[in-house]
Amino acid sequence: MKIGIIGLGRMGGNIARRLMRGGHEVVVWDRNTEAVTGLAGEGAIGAESLSDMKGKLDSPAIYWVMLPAGAPTEETVDALCAHDCAEGDIIIDGGNTFWKDDVRRAKTLAEKGVHYVDVGTSGGVWGLERGYCMMIGGDKETVDLLDPIFDTLAPGIGSVPRTPNRGEACDPRAEKGYIHAGRAGAGHFVKMVHNGIEYGLMQAYAEGFDVLWGRNVEHLPEDERFDFNMAEISEVWRRGSVISSWLLDLTASALAQDQKLEQFSGKVADSGEGRWTIEAAMEQATPVAVLTTALFARYRSRIDEMYGDKLLSAMRYGFGGHVEIPQ
Amino acid sequence: MKIGIIGLGRMGGNIARRLMRGGHEVVVWDRNTEAVTGLAGEGAIGAESLSDMKGKLDSPAIYWVMLPAGAPTEETVDALCAHDCAEGDIIIDGGNTFWKDDVRRAKTLAEKGVHYVDVGTSGGVWGLERGYCMMIGGDKETVDLLDPIFDTLAPGIGSVPRTPNRGEACDPRAEKGYIHAGRAGAGHFVKMVHNGIEYGLMQAYAEGFDVLWGRNVEHLPEDERFDFNMAEISEVWRRGSVISSWLLDLTASALAQDQKLEQFSGKVADSGEGRWTIEAAMEQATPVAVLTTALFARYRSRIDEMYGDKLLSAMRYGFGGHVEIPQ
Amino acid sequence: MKIGIIGLGRMGGNIARRLMRGGHEVVVWDRNTEAVTGLAGEGAIGAESLSDMKGKLDSPAIYWVMLPAGAPTEETVDALCAHDCAEGDIIIDGGNTFWKDDVRRAKTLAEKGVHYVDVGTSGGVWGLERGYCMMIGGDKETVDLLDPIFDTLAPGIGSVPRTPNRGEACDPRAEKGYIHAGRAGAGHFVKMVHNGIEYGLMQAYAEGFDVLWGRNVEHLPEDERFDFNMAEISEVWRRGSVISSWLLDLTASALAQDQKLEQFSGKVADSGEGRWTIEAAMEQATPVAVLTTALFARYRSRIDEMYGDKLLSAMRYGFGGHVEIPQ
Amino acid sequence: MKIGIIGLGRMGGNIARRLMRGGHEVVVWDRNTEAVTGLAGEGAIGAESLSDMKGKLDSPAIYWVMLPAGAPTEETVDALCAHDCAEGDIIIDGGNTFWKDDVRRAKTLAEKGVHYVDVGTSGGVWGLERGYCMMIGGDKETVDLLDPIFDTLAPGIGSVPRTPNRGEACDPRAEKGYIHAGRAGAGHFVKMVHNGIEYGLMQAYAEGFDVLWGRNVEHLPEDERFDFNMAEISEVWRRGSVISSWLLDLTASALAQDQKLEQFSGKVADSGEGRWTIEAAMEQATPVAVLTTALFARYRSRIDEMYGDKLLSAMRYGFGGHVEIPQ
Repeated sequence: MKIGIIGLGRMGGNIARRLMRGGHEVVVWDRNTEAVTGLAGEGAIGAESLSDMKGKLDSPAIYWVMLPAGAPTEETVDALCAHDCAEGDIIIDGGNTFWKDDVRRAKTLAEKGVHYVDVGTSGGVWGLERGYCMMIGGDKETVDLLDPIFDTLAPGIGSVPRTPNRGEACDPRAEKGYIHAGRAGAGHFVKMVHNGIEYGLMQAYAEGFDVLWGRNVEHLPEDERFDFNMAEISEVWRRGSVISSWLLDLTASALAQDQKLEQFSGKVADSGEGRWTIEAAMEQATPVAVLTTALFARYRSRIDEMYGDKLLSAMRYGFGGHVEIPQ
Repeated sequence: MKIGIIGLGRMGGNIARRLMRGGHEVVVWDRNTEAVTGLAGEGAIGAESLSDMKGKLDSPAIYWVMLPAGAPTEETVDALCAHDCAEGDIIIDGGNTFWKDDVRRAKTLAEKGVHYVDVGTSGGVWGLERGYCMMIGGDKETVDLLDPIFDTLAPGIGSVPRTPNRGEACDPRAEKGYIHAGRAGAGHFVKMVHNGIEYGLMQAYAEGFDVLWGRNVEHLPEDERFDFNMAEISEVWRRGSVISSWLLDLTASALAQDQKLEQFSGKVADSGEGRWTIEAAMEQATPVAVLTTALFARYRSRIDEMYGDKLLSAMRYGFGGHVEIPQ
Repeated sequence: MKIGIIGLGRMGGNIARRLMRGGHEVVVWDRNTEAVTGLAGEGAIGAESLSDMKGKLDSPAIYWVMLPAGAPTEETVDALCAHDCAEGDIIIDGGNTFWKDDVRRAKTLAEKGVHYVDVGTSGGVWGLERGYCMMIGGDKETVDLLDPIFDTLAPGIGSVPRTPNRGEACDPRAEKGYIHAGRAGAGHFVKMVHNGIEYGLMQAYAEGFDVLWGRNVEHLPEDERFDFNMAEISEVWRRGSVISSWLLDLTASALAQDQKLEQFSGKVADSGEGRWTIEAAMEQATPVAVLTTALFARYRSRIDEMYGDKLLSAMRYGFGGHVEIPQ
Repeated sequence: MKIGIIGLGRMGGNIARRLMRGGHEVVVWDRNTEAVTGLAGEGAIGAESLSDMKGKLDSPAIYWVMLPAGAPTEETVDALCAHDCAEGDIIIDGGNTFWKDDVRRAKTLAEKGVHYVDVGTSGGVWGLERGYCMMIGGDKETVDLLDPIFDTLAPGIGSVPRTPNRGEACDPRAEKGYIHAGRAGAGHFVKMVHNGIEYGLMQAYAEGFDVLWGRNVEHLPEDERFDFNMAEISEVWRRGSVISSWLLDLTASALAQDQKLEQFSGKVADSGEGRWTIEAAMEQATPVAVLTTALFARYRSRIDEMYGDKLLSAMRYGFGGHVEIPQ
């Protein structure tokens, strides 16, 4: 198929590349003209502007917007809708958009006869080689129409063992690494929850290794203290244990390099989806204590000193005369 | 009554004083002879040793051990039992002992006919003036026998409004500020849970004030940012709000002095009971997420850098190329 | 002063009554005409409509809207603004409005020269007698102008002991039970955090009493099991303990009536502020694990069966053959 | 090698089988004689008693105890030590023993010159085919001596991709699926933390799927509600996503069979290691909020009605007149 890719950062560039490898024609644009030139050198059709891209696409035109969520994506979708899109055209948002923005945009674009598809992707920097795991929202006809695109971007069945019990009724796309999750917004909703889970998984490993790492052990009897090798433990757990996972694979790799992890700051960012997952849960009055706790641990990692902790010290001083005052 | 007080720290000394004010005869001992001399100057009978104390007490002898929990208390109880106690004597542990140690000791002492009473006290440095809130474990006869002691130490009804609905069946001692909670260990068990709750209450206030204090607000629209006065807020909440409490009174006092709390380090200690409460809950398979979270916040306050947080950074670098590496 | 009260439910009716007792003239309206007639019988001036109320107020007119948050309040403020308010008039929202709605409304109303004041009140059904603890947002001039209203509604200094350390610089209003917290929205923001804290405090007590209540204790040695009296414990903690509070007073009263609490369902509602507190914290990347955990415990109390728990069972069956399947 | 296996339940039986397949001679005993006969039919040497087993083993004798943790294991180790073991013999505890019991036993047995090795195994019912992931504690010489046993039981390198960055210094055993974690107790300590992590991982997935499952969505706008297919989502996440794992594989399999999971009760057991992990963390004053929260979710799943929740209702009734009373 022919498709326009808008935004040629790490994700957008690799998506363009993987599509070209799969035989698709790719028209690319980025406000950074070097990125355009670069991809043109790899076989893409460079565009000088959105309207130039429009002229280089078929009808209906298919636009894949791969920009930071929020204003950059919003403005681009608005611009496409205002100046470039004709009835029947398709705008795909492949970024990390908040799912309610998808719901809203799909409604607005539908008034013009433009189809909106939201694609949550997981796979990070590994996607070019491993393929992208995609969760897709939008109307059925449009998602079906785009199938060749998704089929190329997805990992495919590959060497991952097939799931027992999957019967005839199961959607074969899931095994290839993409699903049509539901109406507009569904794709980013599922991806959002994916990230919420990701935070929880990561924090579970982090806490476990924290216990193994050991601190404040001086007061323990000597034979109750251990000196564990983090690299070997992470490696052995990859081998037949219940907690083997891709995140553990990455952990083992990092620990093999330096089990002290000295190059890392330990101040951990979060990207929005974790918080949105909690908000979605609260809209449903569903408890998600692990996901929330995991997010809060990241917040805490970035704060040197909590005001509230000082307040605790002040109260303790008040009722018990406990002194937690630095020299 | 006549009673021996062993351990004349802040708590033991004030307990001796409050008992003397209530007309009791108090024999005191501490390995710090100055403390003994000091209290003797206030009317107590000084003892030079445990056996000297024994000679100065009536029969049955009543010992109130007011020492740090763990080894100091254990050794003193053992010594009393081994050398000083006769059948019918009473040992009271007024410290912060782990309740299972009480269960064990009561059993051991019972074999010698010695009665063991555990008293959890709350009230901290304010006890001399306000009286001590006491939760008592032991056999009924002994606890009843000691009633004059507890009655003196307790706050009494005072100006605290009476609880509606308390009928004839209610134990009048509770209104005066002490209860016989149950068999040996029950007193420290209830006191332990009291402290567990205390941690939870404190953390709830701490988190609320953290939100009011505000951080990372630069990205918010200006009219969504506030500049709250912590001292005024804590004060107003003391006045008719649902969250008024003694801990809030202390908070208001600290904030009135310095709402920035700059003299406090924000590294918050914990004293054992919080952890024991969680262990007791786990023995019953009862979830106590708030109490646990509160304890963990204190742990976290004392750690500069979590190994687990570095691990999160390492994983993020692994799957997304996110760089959380200090310069 | 003369003031219109819109909404005569439990809160609005009692606010009208307390204002009349304080010598203010009160014009009342409610879509339930019986409520209007009733208060008119107590001395209020009944209004037949908002425009009738307008005619019965002075200039500038002062409206106190005391309606459920969300649509009822929003529509009333809109209607007042559209049809009734002249420049200089004041609209007070005394309900449980989301603070960002205040920020937005204040801006809109300011364009018409109408002043908007948000008042978060705590004190519940006890406010008529005890007075209302009020957290107020709005511009200084307007809040100052309304001072006689707030002064009457507030508890006043009463018998609550004064806070040590409060110096000359402190705002005397806080001691009477109300504060000007900041610009529009600040009042409801502080009230929101108050409720967030309230959830945390309540859950701390709940968990503590859960541990005391005891469950799954059959496997414990007999001398490690207790049979606690919840009513006596809650009472004794009111007396000189560190965890005394108004919530504990209420607890003691409920437990004195029935320590089994058999009349209560244990399905616990939440009212919005708890969730908003967490959202506000997340906007600041501030961890509030206790407040969140407390909210989630309420969610959980209303769910009979978690889908996620079944998933845990399914996984356990998958890796370990553990059977958690009902007959 | 020649080895005695004591306890022929699911785990012990399969370990015996895997060892025989690997060419080892296996002497088996179980108090259930049918289990002995059964394995004898598969090539094992049946023993009629522990002392009979002793006679059938070489010197030094190697015993693998594979019994439930606690009393059954303790009594067997005691019996072996008292009646059967000679200096130089080796007792391996392959069960789920609390690591401090290992520390204690190793010390006791060392006095007799008997070596104690603790082996935490992961892999559950899949171990016979996939091999057992093993974490081993004990003195180096003994663990080295037993290497042929561990090598046979372990999964081996198999098809799991090798970890980048593992250099020359890395222990080759980890890649085969077993490690010598440290002195006695270290094996079960690492296995304990493994299970703690397992609980956290599982709960993260459970919460994510709970949000996808959806509840209380009636109040949401229709286009913000989705009807997700749990089976397809779990499948797609196996394919190139960041959260792929073996637990997700199992989840996908269960959901492919019945995405409603109707056969599962949702009352989830826990096995001790989760709790011990938290206790170990508390001994180090290390926060492990996700692991704890995950354990507490299981506790909660088994409780129909919390006393504490009723207390919340009682408080709410007290301050707000909120009625949470069933008809």
